[in-house]
This record gives sequence, structure tokens and C-alpha cells, in this order.
Amino acid sequence: MQNTKSNKLWGGRFHKETSQLLEEFNASLPFDKRLYKQDILGSKIHAKMLHKCGILTNDEMQSICVGLEQIEQEIQEDRFIFTLSDEDIHMAIEKRLTQIIGEAGKKLHTARSRNDQVALDFRLFVLDCNKTLRSLCLNLIHTLLNIAQDHTKTILPGFTHLQHAQPINFGFLMCAYICMFVRDFERLESSFKRNNYCPLGAAALAGTPYNTDRFYTAKALGFIAPTLNAIDSVSDRDFALDFLYDCSLIAIHVSRLAEELVLWSSYEFKFITLSDAYSTGSSIMPQKKNPDIPELLRGKSGRVFGNLFALLAVMKGLPLAYNKDTQEDKEGVFDTFDTLEISLRILNDLLKTMEIHTNNMLQACKKGHLSATDLADFLVTNCDIPFREAHHITGEAVAYAESLGKDLSELSIEELCRINPKIPKQAHKALDLFASMEARNSYGGTSQQATLIQIQSLQAWLQTAKASMEY
Amino acid sequence: MQNTKSNKLWGGRFHKETSQLLEEFNASLPFDKRLYKQDILGSKIHAKMLHKCGILTNDEMQSICVGLEQIEQEIQEDRFIFTLSDEDIHMAIEKRLTQIIGEAGKKLHTARSRNDQVALDFRLFVLDCNKTLRSLCLNLIHTLLNIAQDHTKTILPGFTHLQHAQPINFGFLMCAYICMFVRDFERLESSFKRNNYCPLGAAALAGTPYNTDRFYTAKALGFIAPTLNAIDSVSDRDFALDFLYDCSLIAIHVSRLAEELVLWSSYEFKFITLSDAYSTGSSIMPQKKNPDIPELLRGKSGRVFGNLFALLAVMKGLPLAYNKDTQEDKEGVFDTFDTLEISLRILNDLLKTMEIHTNNMLQACKKGHLSATDLADFLVTNCDIPFREAHHITGEAVAYAESLGKDLSELSIEELCRINPKIPKQAHKALDLFASMEARNSYGGTSQQATLIQIQSLQAWLQTAKASMEY
Amino acid sequence: MQNTKSNKLWGGRFHKETSQLLEEFNASLPFDKRLYKQDILGSKIHAKMLHKCGILTNDEMQSICVGLEQIEQEIQEDRFIFTLSDEDIHMAIEKRLTQIIGEAGKKLHTARSRNDQVALDFRLFVLDCNKTLRSLCLNLIHTLLNIAQDHTKTILPGFTHLQHAQPINFGFLMCAYICMFVRDFERLESSFKRNNYCPLGAAALAGTPYNTDRFYTAKALGFIAPTLNAIDSVSDRDFALDFLYDCSLIAIHVSRLAEELVLWSSYEFKFITLSDAYSTGSSIMPQKKNPDIPELLRGKSGRVFGNLFALLAVMKGLPLAYNKDTQEDKEGVFDTFDTLEISLRILNDLLKTMEIHTNNMLQACKKGHLSATDLADFLVTNCDIPFREAHHITGEAVAYAESLGKDLSELSIEELCRINPKIPKQAHKALDLFASMEARNSYGGTSQQATLIQIQSLQAWLQTAKASMEY
Amino acid sequence: MQNTKSNKLWGGRFHKETSQLLEEFNASLPFDKRLYKQDILGSKIHAKMLHKCGILTNDEMQSICVGLEQIEQEIQEDRFIFTLSDEDIHMAIEKRLTQIIGEAGKKLHTARSRNDQVALDFRLFVLDCNKTLRSLCLNLIHTLLNIAQDHTKTILPGFTHLQHAQPINFGFLMCAYICMFVRDFERLESSFKRNNYCPLGAAALAGTPYNTDRFYTAKALGFIAPTLNAIDSVSDRDFALDFLYDCSLIAIHVSRLAEELVLWSSYEFKFITLSDAYSTGSSIMPQKKNPDIPELLRGKSGRVFGNLFALLAVMKGLPLAYNKDTQEDKEGVFDTFDTLEISLRILNDLLKTMEIHTNNMLQACKKGHLSATDLADFLVTNCDIPFREAHHITGEAVAYAESLGKDLSELSIEELCRINPKIPKQAHKALDLFASMEARNSYGGTSQQATLIQIQSLQAWLQTAKASMEY
Repeated sequence: MQNTKSNKLWGGRFHKETSQLLEEFNASLPFDKRLYKQDILGSKIHAKMLHKCGILTNDEMQSICVGLEQIEQEIQEDRFIFTLSDEDIHMAIEKRLTQIIGEAGKKLHTARSRNDQVALDFRLFVLDCNKTLRSLCLNLIHTLLNIAQDHTKTILPGFTHLQHAQPINFGFLMCAYICMFVRDFERLESSFKRNNYCPLGAAALAGTPYNTDRFYTAKALGFIAPTLNAIDSVSDRDFALDFLYDCSLIAIHVSRLAEELVLWSSYEFKFITLSDAYSTGSSIMPQKKNPDIPELLRGKSGRVFGNLFALLAVMKGLPLAYNKDTQEDKEGVFDTFDTLEISLRILNDLLKTMEIHTNNMLQACKKGHLSATDLADFLVTNCDIPFREAHHITGEAVAYAESLGKDLSELSIEELCRINPKIPKQAHKALDLFASMEARNSYGGTSQQATLIQIQSLQAWLQTAKASMEY
Repeated sequence: MQNTKSNKLWGGRFHKETSQLLEEFNASLPFDKRLYKQDILGSKIHAKMLHKCGILTNDEMQSICVGLEQIEQEIQEDRFIFTLSDEDIHMAIEKRLTQIIGEAGKKLHTARSRNDQVALDFRLFVLDCNKTLRSLCLNLIHTLLNIAQDHTKTILPGFTHLQHAQPINFGFLMCAYICMFVRDFERLESSFKRNNYCPLGAAALAGTPYNTDRFYTAKALGFIAPTLNAIDSVSDRDFALDFLYDCSLIAIHVSRLAEELVLWSSYEFKFITLSDAYSTGSSIMPQKKNPDIPELLRGKSGRVFGNLFALLAVMKGLPLAYNKDTQEDKEGVFDTFDTLEISLRILNDLLKTMEIHTNNMLQACKKGHLSATDLADFLVTNCDIPFREAHHITGEAVAYAESLGKDLSELSIEELCRINPKIPKQAHKALDLFASMEARNSYGGTSQQATLIQIQSLQAWLQTAKASMEY
Repeated sequence: MQNTKSNKLWGGRFHKETSQLLEEFNASLPFDKRLYKQDILGSKIHAKMLHKCGILTNDEMQSICVGLEQIEQEIQEDRFIFTLSDEDIHMAIEKRLTQIIGEAGKKLHTARSRNDQVALDFRLFVLDCNKTLRSLCLNLIHTLLNIAQDHTKTILPGFTHLQHAQPINFGFLMCAYICMFVRDFERLESSFKRNNYCPLGAAALAGTPYNTDRFYTAKALGFIAPTLNAIDSVSDRDFALDFLYDCSLIAIHVSRLAEELVLWSSYEFKFITLSDAYSTGSSIMPQKKNPDIPELLRGKSGRVFGNLFALLAVMKGLPLAYNKDTQEDKEGVFDTFDTLEISLRILNDLLKTMEIHTNNMLQACKKGHLSATDLADFLVTNCDIPFREAHHITGEAVAYAESLGKDLSELSIEELCRINPKIPKQAHKALDLFASMEARNSYGGTSQQATLIQIQSLQAWLQTAKASMEY
Repeated sequence: MQNTKSNKLWGGRFHKETSQLLEEFNASLPFDKRLYKQDILGSKIHAKMLHKCGILTNDEMQSICVGLEQIEQEIQEDRFIFTLSDEDIHMAIEKRLTQIIGEAGKKLHTARSRNDQVALDFRLFVLDCNKTLRSLCLNLIHTLLNIAQDHTKTILPGFTHLQHAQPINFGFLMCAYICMFVRDFERLESSFKRNNYCPLGAAALAGTPYNTDRFYTAKALGFIAPTLNAIDSVSDRDFALDFLYDCSLIAIHVSRLAEELVLWSSYEFKFITLSDAYSTGSSIMPQKKNPDIPELLRGKSGRVFGNLFALLAVMKGLPLAYNKDTQEDKEGVFDTFDTLEISLRILNDLLKTMEIHTNNMLQACKKGHLSATDLADFLVTNCDIPFREAHHITGEAVAYAESLGKDLSELSIEELCRINPKIPKQAHKALDLFASMEARNSYGGTSQQATLIQIQSLQAWLQTAKASMEY
């Protein structure tokens, strides 16, 4: 690696060479080379625009495009030599371009600056990631919908406070997670639209004296329009923060499902068994089969939050326009995308391959007096007892059942009626678990019918969402 | 404060009284009483729906509504007695209702649970805050637009890396901040739409056996529709996280402007003077006039981020459906809203009343070789020198000027031409500062014309946005 | 509330009155009045020092001290009138002092500034909180030690990945938590020592021309010595960050124990039952008994982290010396202390009153092939089989047992030997659960003997720690 | 990469192969190979202990040690083949060991588990990082002390609220930063001591049935003692959190100094010029010389905070003992260490090579009425005017000077006396700037004498600290 004054594209007024330590500290090349595709695409469109506006000749533009395509191939085939002193991917590509095509290469940087160039490349990258994650959300929703459809009759205890609360069906439970990922998709979609504007042409901070056509560039790159203000264009990182936040919420939803998968895999619950293909063992305890994947899925939410917080702290209080602090925007986004991309894929596979123990779920319903609310509701509806009082009476019934070591549903008619003179014999049928689930037939409720309405509604949403991705 | 078993609405199966410490720790009443309006509104609509569906008689419904209105008045007039053992605002109001109207009060809780009730109240509150902040963003944009219009001829150095970069106008700089607050408005707006669904009727977690009409309730409360799935309805706090995130970005934008206000108020910059009405002094140094408000505006972003991260950490890994951890959602939202509500108001006033020292801004332009890029551009355009080489020659010119203790713009024609034989005499005119600013006439650039286009575009946006708020 | 120019102690050079909104935004009085005791104590010692150094007469000093004591009483008896325009507790007390004792009151502020005054008051407060939390850690450790002592024979499954791993005793498990709280105590202790220096006398930022004695002040207030550098004294908030971090780790440890309490209270585990006095019910489900307290204990860690991150973000990048952003340091510390103070107290009570179901713990050991490692170890020790191979053979044994629907410990000798010719008959005894636990007798292990050593060691530590608090 | 059932050291009971995606998601090898030295060292000592306790023969032990040394060399010379299916560095090394030395290699894992092995390796790594950063803090303190010594006569304005406050000397200002890094050193030191205990031998979670000697292992690895409780040993990550927090505070202090370096490098301040070797230019603006390094130093604090928050979120609410989430502990620590290691080194170099413009600092003192406090103090001391009234009179003097367009120090005697009849002629001499600085001679103050005392005290501290590192 050579390290001389003339090496730097900006070295004109400098008397001393930069220190090696500075190069190592300052260079973003080790990580921003990941943006090479976006950089090359942006440069090609920029060259075309410069030609269209009479700033480059046709030959210059053609030569630039061919040179850039050669570079793209060199990088893809791992033949490109990255040199730390080139600082960043933009400089590295431009220097190589000049090596390949000569003087014309130096003209490419006309009417732009690294400030708007990096803003463009990174924004293109983030918007690509946004699309990929949306697509993965749809895959996951598809899988969850299949499970939901298969399990509208699979009864299990619904939990609040990790206590058995009311009987629900497993399909209904899956719909809750689908609703979360639907919001995640929509959140990504609205971030995409809000940030789908092209910063290229803002130049360093104030626009350019060249007679350029930013609308051409914007359209050619797939943006809605160019950004409105040049300073904002080079200093704005809202698009990256929006992405990190959108990912944080996906990570939360994944972590919640992961927590349940861990619980359900335990000896205590035994609601599911993860496939061997998605489990691991212990180096010392031969009997262990560990839910490592759900645990990692749960844990990885932490790093996603961390990346969000890192960039919030970086951006806080920065004066306009561009400051070098902003270079800290990329690694957290890369890491977050990689984390969620694999997380969503592996979660999808894991859900598809897990075994669901419907009988264990059913057995679990016989603990926890799940039909207590039904008894209370029966008293309200049939005996004209105000809800609060019915609640109180049922509480006494539960305490009585526990004193006998029984579940509420196991009380005989006699035992039930002994508790309080206000309880009629007919109340006994209110204690059936399946009836209890079916009774909750309100919109959004857990009866089979109500669940099927949710599934249909989500299937329709999925079709529309898929279609929206194919533009 | 009485503390007996019968005091609790859920006390039926309990043998021991709750401890005083538990009440203090567990109760949300000290902070969630702020939701009383939302709670009463939700209860009134719930009662009407129950009546519509034949679950309450007309008399019961009327009696409940009258009772609730009386309670609302008692709270507003500070006559309502809050008792810690009531745990939360929902219990406090319901208990009082029963005191006032008797048995009918106990029927109000039919077909709902505290889980969906609190989800409703808090969501209504957050949506209200969302609207208020959007309105304050528009006020701020209005003020910034007025300043921008008045200062399209006010030239000052544009900064990158806190170094003088290129001459810009102050109106153009204001437009950069307007663009940020425009995104903030739009971000709030899309969060509003995504979360504008009614959770009431989800009951504890699984819906209700009563034949209710959740669409009626949703419409009557101004929502688009009821939420789709009952478990998701009671466990979802995305709406609160979205709000906290949206506020975090507003806080970042405010902190960036605040940082500039602090810098501009310093003796070194002297670009502005804050009004005495928005400044403070020192208890020991009589000459001090401190920009306390911008400093606080900058610092307060920290607490907003903190509130966001608190709730992210709370929600991570929570199994479905409702868990008590979720009670931690409110205080951070209250604090964030209060912080931003006053921040946006005071920032607005401070901007309106500050003095702008246009002459100091102009003088500052004469430091930092602001027209260097123009020299480079001249060489490219008129002398057919590739940009990178022109950049290099100009770098030498800057170094030469500095060696003479001059600004680049102060070099004589002779001095300029001495630097490099490639520089022609005509290049000298490229160094004029105002011409330099006017040259950047590309879309989004800093010329007066380009700035006026931005202002017009933002004014049009503002009209539309204001109209969208008046539904 | 009056709001005139002369009202402000720093109003001399100001032409306009401060705005009402500024007062509301700027004033710290609504929260920093909590520092009144520290402020009065600091002022009394400052007055004594000024007298000792000949700056105040004896009469002036006496008069100041008497006046301050009267103010302290007024505040304690809720008779003190706080006025927002006084900005902060320091100004409020000083103004009142001058009302009471006349001109001498104005002399109190000699040789100090609000900058060092607030640094002192807040540091005294934080150090007090530090002591209180240390004391509460010791109480908790005491309780946990009692439980540990009572349960060295209570066998339960030790978990990794929430899967049954090896049999342990409950006392041993309690010791793990004690170790965490021991570190928390020690972390607080080292923060205390590192920050136990007195900033008073640093004045605004550069010291004072008065011939003061900062060592006198420091000693009289219980500090080790005065701080070394005046600028650092007024700009340093490390002591607050240290406190927030120390609290974050306590919160993590509490959240981990809380998570286990939630799990153990579930129908699936049933390892413990929380006392009715520390449980709550459901407003709609009469059978529910919810572990609200552990859930809140778990959730509240979020707000503690949030407060830490808020202050980290505030302090980042602040130039020296004092900036108003720093005023944001207090509320997060107050909230954190209040949160942990009650959390540690209620956790202590909850642990003391919970019922431990030793039989359920024992039954749970019969699931999950807990003695698998013992079989592997037997093969290594007695059959000269390398560990990795023994691990493999045991894995096959577990798979075989599962195929029979049995726990490994339930295999007959014949079944065991059928798995692999390398397994001798004697290996069968390795499967006994209690023997398995007792076998792990290494230092720090789970055998009763090893556990008792841990308990003794922790008891000795507790005695020393208690003694260290009584200075 | 082969991927078969028998490949896994824990594969015994598994029927299906692990999926490729699981391997990619689950494996920590890509990052934890960084721990190879710690892993090999730990294994060698473990083998020696096993031999000492009669569990391994001398030949086995020797063979293991030789094999491990060969592996270390292979890794250092980049000849070691890492295979993703080995999962982690521990498995990779153990598998290779068995390839090299045969069956004896399989015995190395006796009496330990991956749980305690990773806890050991990572703790050793963190303690090493702790030492390295302490050493770098001392280097930085050394450099700052040299600057401080050279500049006790360099007068500049002390700032509060970024407003000129009182004249100070530059050496005094440097001492403020030294005090911060002293605390950072001490914070690291106390974390080191608190966490310097050896977890090896805790095995999976409950100790081991082998008769091991954990005290031998602990001493041989340089620890104070073994950890007390096995469960805590494998689940504790306090040492990593402590490290991340300690680094966060260093990052804050670095960011504050960096902010000042950015300000001081601006055209507005011009207090310093960074060496060309530690500056960069602009790709479009040839005149630019940008303080990229201080900006990055400031920005990088964000990622450090992010890493801390990530791990806090990961550890929150994890039940005992080991959970896979904990694997998320390493990358953030690696990144944090790398960030701070280079940050401290480059900051050191940058400070050593920057040019300090003492004349510009002096000129800056003539703005901002820096001697205002001195006038007030004169009035108190010589005219028996209470401080608050003197403050008020001086405020009027400042306002009067500003109305004349003068600095307070430029007022003539006549002008001064005209302001208020209470001001005597002698007061005029109180306005001299150097006298003003020298007057603040209290302990910790800014007079040359007081500054020299600070420097001496810090030099003595440095000697002691250096000595403490050489054990």
C-alpha cells in the first residue's frame, strides 16, 4: 500500500502526508465496499445525465459506463484490489476508473461530491434492504397462515401473566403474530415511500453551478423525485434511522414469538418439538436438545436496538451540513439487515418443521380453571347478577375447587351449587372447555368461526401485499 | 385509605389482604389518572354499544352516562378522591360509578376487561398526542418559512465539518430544517393511520361471549375499524413505540437546530442574538447571557431516546397475551409528549424573536476561501481541465493564499496567475462570493431562485398539511 | 407568581423580562426541590467555612445558619412557598434566606456559584442513594441466605436453555443470585469511593479569588477531599452515570430472578406460590392469581436502562465547562433510585412470604434425563472411555429411552445394557438423581457440602459488608 | 465443509442433520475464533490441573499441551482450517487436537463444559482488554500533562454555555480532561478487581463429580481465586457489561474533548490547527481541511453506547443458568475494544502534533467582558457591598459597555464610575485579564500556582498508576 501525498484526490493544499493510523481510523473502505453496486449504478446514471445535459460527450459517457461495468465485474470476481489509502468505495472506484479509461474518468465527479454520492449509495442500499425484509415478512406471514389454518380446532390455554386464562385455539394465537408482522410490513412500506427521494446532485451542500437535470437522475434510479434541499440531502440520515427502527420492531415481534417457542419446547410445556435440523445439543449433557435458534432470535433483538441507539446518539446535536460523524451510519445498518434477514429466514424454516403436540395443549387446558369466566358470564346472563358480583362468586368457586385439589371444570354439580345459593344447576354446563372457546365468537375472538374470519382477512391482505411488491 | 379484602374488585379467591407495599408498587393510578377523559369516553361508548346490542337497558345506559359525566366533572374540579387501593383509573372510576348509580354501574364492565380497556384508553391518548405534535410541527414550519422568505439574500458560509465550505443564503439553510420537520409530520401521520384501530371488545385476550358490535364502538370513537385479533389487541404496544420513535426523530432535528443556535449565539460566531425574553444570566458572572433554551432543547433529546429504549427493553421477549410489564408503557410516553410539546412551542417563540445579524454572516464569508470550488469549476468549464486536476490546482492556490495570510478571494489577479500556468486571468472573477452563491442554481441549490422554488414548494405542502388536519 | 425583571438574581444586564414559557421550560425547581436538604447542609458548611476564613463575621454566619434551619423546617412542614420564577431550589432558598435575615443572606453566595452548588447538592444526593441501595442489597442477601440454608436438600432440575440439565439443590440456586447482589454491592461501593470528592468552591468554573478552605468544607461534608480541578468539578457527571449504571445491573439481576419467579408460579412449573399479599387478580377472570410484582420487577429494568441512556446521550460531545443540558441529569436519577428502592424492598418481602413446593421440584427432576451426564461420567471414569465417546453413547441411551416413552432414570438394567456393549451393569446406579446431585462436589458445585461452603462464605462476606456500612 | 450427523460432538441423540441455515445462524466461530489464545491457554492449564489431580496421565497431559501449541502456531500462521460446522472456537480446537494426538484429545473436556469454557475464554479476553485500555489511558494522560505543563501561561476564555465566562489558562483546561481519564483508569481498575475470578470448573452449571482443584487453575491463569458458585459462573456476564460501561464513559470523555477540538479548529475559534498528518480534505472543495478525526472520535461514542445497550437488553430477564442469547455478548465487546483502542491511540498522536495558537486565545479574551466577575468581587471585598447587589451593579456596567460597543475591560475610569456612584476609581484595575486569572488562586482554581499544584498532583498519580500496571 503506497501512502504518498499525490495519492489523495484531495491532497492539493496539504504539506504533510497523512499518518497510517489516520488512514486506518478514517477509512470507511473496509465496510462501505459493500455499496459497490449502488455506487456503480449511481455513477452510470450520473454519467448519462451529464451527457444528456451536454457536460460529457457521448464518448466520455460510454467510456465511463464501460469502465464502471468492468470494475463491477472485477469486484464480483474478487479481482479488484482495495487499497486502504483510497479511503472509501467511491474513491476506490473512481481511481480505478481513471486507470482504465484515462482522463474521462476524472470528469465523472463533475456536479457531484462525495457528500451526495454517499447519501445516494447508502439510501439505495437501505431501500433495497427495506424491500428484501418486506418480502421476508410476507413469507413468514404465509407460513403462519398455513399453521393457523391447520389449527383452528387445536385448543390450548390462552395465557395472561403466564397464567392460564381462557381456552383459545392455536390458529387464533398464530393470527396474533401475523397481525404484528403485517404492521411491520406496513411500517417498512411507509418508510420506503417517505424516503424514496434522490439526493444526488446536491453536491457538497449547496447544489452545483452546472446545468444538471436531477429529475432525470431520480427517475432513472427509481426514485419518486429528487430531494428538495441540498443541505438536507447531504445531512439527512432519517432514512437509516427509520430502517433501524422498523427493524427494531420486527426484532421485538420475533423475540416474543421466540420466547414462546422456548417455553413451549420446555419439559414443563411440551407444546412443540423443534426439528432436529433446527436444534442443537450440549457438549457435556448428552440428553439435551436445546432451542438455540429461538434463544438467539430472542437475544439478537438486543443488537438491533443497540444499532438504533448508536445512530440516534451519533445524529443528536450535529450542526449542518455534513459531518464526519455520519460515517458511523453504515455498519449498524449492515449488521441489522444481516441479522434480520437470516432471522426471518430461519424462523420461517423452524416454524414449518416444528411438531405441534395438540394433545399436550389439550391436557394443559385442564389446569387453571379456564372456564371460570364462563361461569361468571353465565351468572350475569342467566341469573341477572351484576358482573362484579358474579366475578366475586366465581372467585369463591375457584378457591373452593383448589381446596379440594380439583380444577373448576372437575367440580360436580353438587359441589358447584354448594358454594353459593345464587348458583343454579344449569351453570354446570358453562364449565365445558370447548364450549368456552366457542362462546367467544365476537369479532376478533377465539371461536373457530371468528378465527376463520381473521384468517380470511389476512389472506386477502397477503394477496394485496404480494401484488404491491411486484411493481 | 382503606385496605380490605372486599375492597378489590378481583378479591374473590384471595385469602390474605394485599400488602401496602404491593399497592404502592403495583398501582398505576398515580400516573394513569391522566387517562381519565379517554377512560370515560370509552366507557360511555361501550355503554351505548351494550345498549344497542340489548345487553343494557336504556335506563341503565343513560344512568351510566350521566354518572360518568358527573365523575368527569368531579375530576376536572379536583373533587374526586383518588385512593391508591383502586389500583388504576379504570377501577377508580368504576367504583365511584357504582357509588353514584348503584348496581347498574357493575354492569358496565360486561363484555370488556381491563386489558382491552387500558389498551383503548392509552391508544386514544397516544393518537391525541400525535395530532397535537403534528399541529405544532406545522406552526414551526410556518415560522421557519417566514424566516426563510425574509433571508434569501442573507449570505453566510455554509459549513461542512464545521469548516467554511461554500457561501449559501440563510433562507436556504432554514429550508433544510423545514424539510426535516416535514418528514416528522409525515412520519407521525403514517403512524397515526397504521395504529388507528380500536382494541375495545377484545376483552381479556380472547373476545367475549356477548353479542357485541365492535364496529359500532370503533366508529363512534373515531377509529377506522376494530382491531382484527383479540390477543394482539391486548398485547400490542407498537402504537406507543411508534410514537416514541417519531418523537425521537423530532428531538434529533430540534437538537441539531439547537446546536446551531448555541454556536450562532457565541462570541465567535455572533450570527444571532436571542431575545432577552428567551435567555438567562449567571448567578456569579454578571456579563453572561446564556442560550439556556437551545441547550435544554439539545439535551432533552436524551430523555426522549431513553424513553424509547425503556419501552423497547420492556417489550422484548414478552410472551402473549397481556403481561404486567406492559404497565411500564405510560410514563415514558407522557414524559415524551410533555417534553416535545413545550419544546416545539418554545423553539417556535425563540425563532420568532431572535435577532439575525446579517452583517456578521457576510463578514464570516470572507474567511475560509469559500470560492475555491468556483475556481475549480471555472477551470473545468472554461479551461477543459478534468475536475480532479482542477481540484488539485485550487488546493495549491488555497495553500498559497494562506501562506500570504489572505483569503483566496483577496488574491490579486497576478498572485492568482502565479500559482499555476494553467490559470487564466478571467478566473479571477470566479472568486466573487455572491456570484458563487448565485451560481449554484441547480434544483435544490442555494441560489436565490432555487431557494424560492423550495420555499414555494414548502408553502404549498403546508397548505395541504393544514387542510388535512381539519377533518 | 410575580415575574418582573428585578425578580431575577442575575437580571442586571437584561432589558426584557423573561417569558412565562421560558420559566416553565427552564426551571428545575419542580424537581430539584427534592435536593433541599443537601442544599441547606451545603450552605451551612459553606457559611462556616467563610467565617473560618474571615469572609463572614460570626454573627453573619450564625444568622445564616439559623435562617437556613428555619427554611428547612418550613419545607418539611410544607409551609415554604415555591415560586417558579426562582428557577431552582438554590435560588428559592437564597431568596427566602434574604427575606428572613436581610443583607447577610446575600453574602452566602460569596466564593461559590450555582455551578458548583448544584454539583455539590446532586453529588451528596447520589452518594446518599448509593448508601441506601447498598443497605437494601444486604437485606436481600440476608433473605436469600436464609432461604438457601433451608433448602440445601431441596432437589430440583437445574436448567440450561430452559431445558432440564442436571439435578441441583434450591439453596445452591439461591447462592447464584446472592453472588450477583454481592457484585452489585461491591460495584456501588467502588463508585462511592471514586466519586466521594467535594466540588464546592470550584465556583463558576475557575475557582475563586477569595481565600477559602476547600479541605475544611470537604471534610465537614463527609467527603475524602475536595475535587482537584474546578472545570472538571462543575462539568463532571460521571458520579450520576456510575450510579445509573450500577442500578442498571441491579435491575438486570432483579429481572432475572423475577423471570424465574414468573416461570415458577406458572401452572406448568408450580415450584412456588406467591403469597396472596403479593399477588393480584383479574377484573374479568375470577380464577386468576397473577404474579404482577415479578412482572413489574422484570419490566422496570427497562426504565432504568432508559435513564442511563438518556444521560449518556446528554453528556456526549458537551464542550467544557458547564452547559445547561446537564440539568437533564436529575430526573432520571430520582426515578431510578425510587424504582430500585421500592423494587428491592418488595422483592425482599415477596421472597420471604412465598411458598416453596419442594415436592413439585422433586417430581420435575424425573423428566429430562437429568442423570445423563452421570452415565457419561461413569463410562469415562470406570470404563476408560474417552469423554467424547461416552457423551455419544449416552446420547444414544437418551434417544432409546425417549423411544420407550421413559426417562433415562427409569430404564431397567437390561434396557440400559442393550444400548451399547460398552455399558456395564454397574452403570445403572449412576442414574440415581440424589446421587447425581451429591456427586458434583467440586468447589462451587451443587452437592450439599459444596453448597454449605458457599453459604458460609457468603455469610462471612455479609458480616464484613454490614460492618463496613456502619462507619 | 462436511455436514453429517457424526460431525457434531453432541450428535448422539439426534436423528436428523442440522440444517445449513442453522449452522450459519448458530455458529459463533466466525467471531469467537478471536479467542483462540485464551482458549488454548485455558485448555493447557486445565490439562495440567487434570494431571495434578490424577485424572490425566503425565503423557496425556504433555501430549495435549504439545498438540495445543501446534494448533496455536497453525492459527497464527493462518494454516488452521476453520469449518463452520465446528460451531465455535472451542469445538474447532478440540476436534483438531484429536486429529493430531488421538484419543487423549477427547479426554481434555473432562470436568468442564463449553459453558464454563466460554465463560473463561471471554473473561480472560475482557480482562486483557481492560489492561490495554488502562495503559492507553496512561499514555493519553502523559501527553495531556505535557501540554498542560507547557501552557500554564497560555490565557484563553473559559466557557460556560459556550459563552465567554472567565479567563483561564490552557494547562488548567487540560487538567480537567486529565481528571476524567484518571477516573476512567480507576473505573477500569475496580472492574478488573471485581471480575478477576476464574469460572473454569463450574462445568455445565453445577460443578463436576471429578476431584478437581479449581484454586490451582485460577492461580495458574492469574486470577485471584475461582468463582464461588457454578451457576453464577456460567450465566454471569457482569464482567462484559462492566467493560462496556467503562468504555462508554471513556467514549464520553473522548467525545467532549473531540467536540472542543472541532470547535477550536473552526475559522471562528482558530485556537488550534491540526497537523496535516491528522486532517483530511474534500473531494469537491479544494480549500477544505477537515477535522475528520475529532468528528469520528465524537461519533464513535454512539456505537459504544449501542453495544452497551445491546447487551443490557440481551441479559434482561434471562432465567438461569446458561441461555444461548448470551452468545450475543462477544461482538459488541470486540467492536468496543477495537474502537477505543484506536481512538485512544489516534487522539494521543493528534494532541501531540496539533499547533496551539496562543495569540488567538489571548485575543479571544478581549471579547465577552471576562473580568465582570472580578469587578463584582472587588465591590464585595472593598466596598462592603453584598454579592448579589455587586452582581447587579456589574450587570449594569456590562450593559453600558455593550451600548458603547466596548468590552468591559476597555471602559475608561470615568466611564466606569459613571455607571453607579457606589463604584470607586480603584475598581478599574480589577478589569485586567491576567490579574483576573491569577486572582482565582483557590485550591483547584485557574491561577498558575493553583494549576501547577494540580499538575504535580496528577504527575504523582501517574507514577503510581504506571507502577501498579507493572505487576
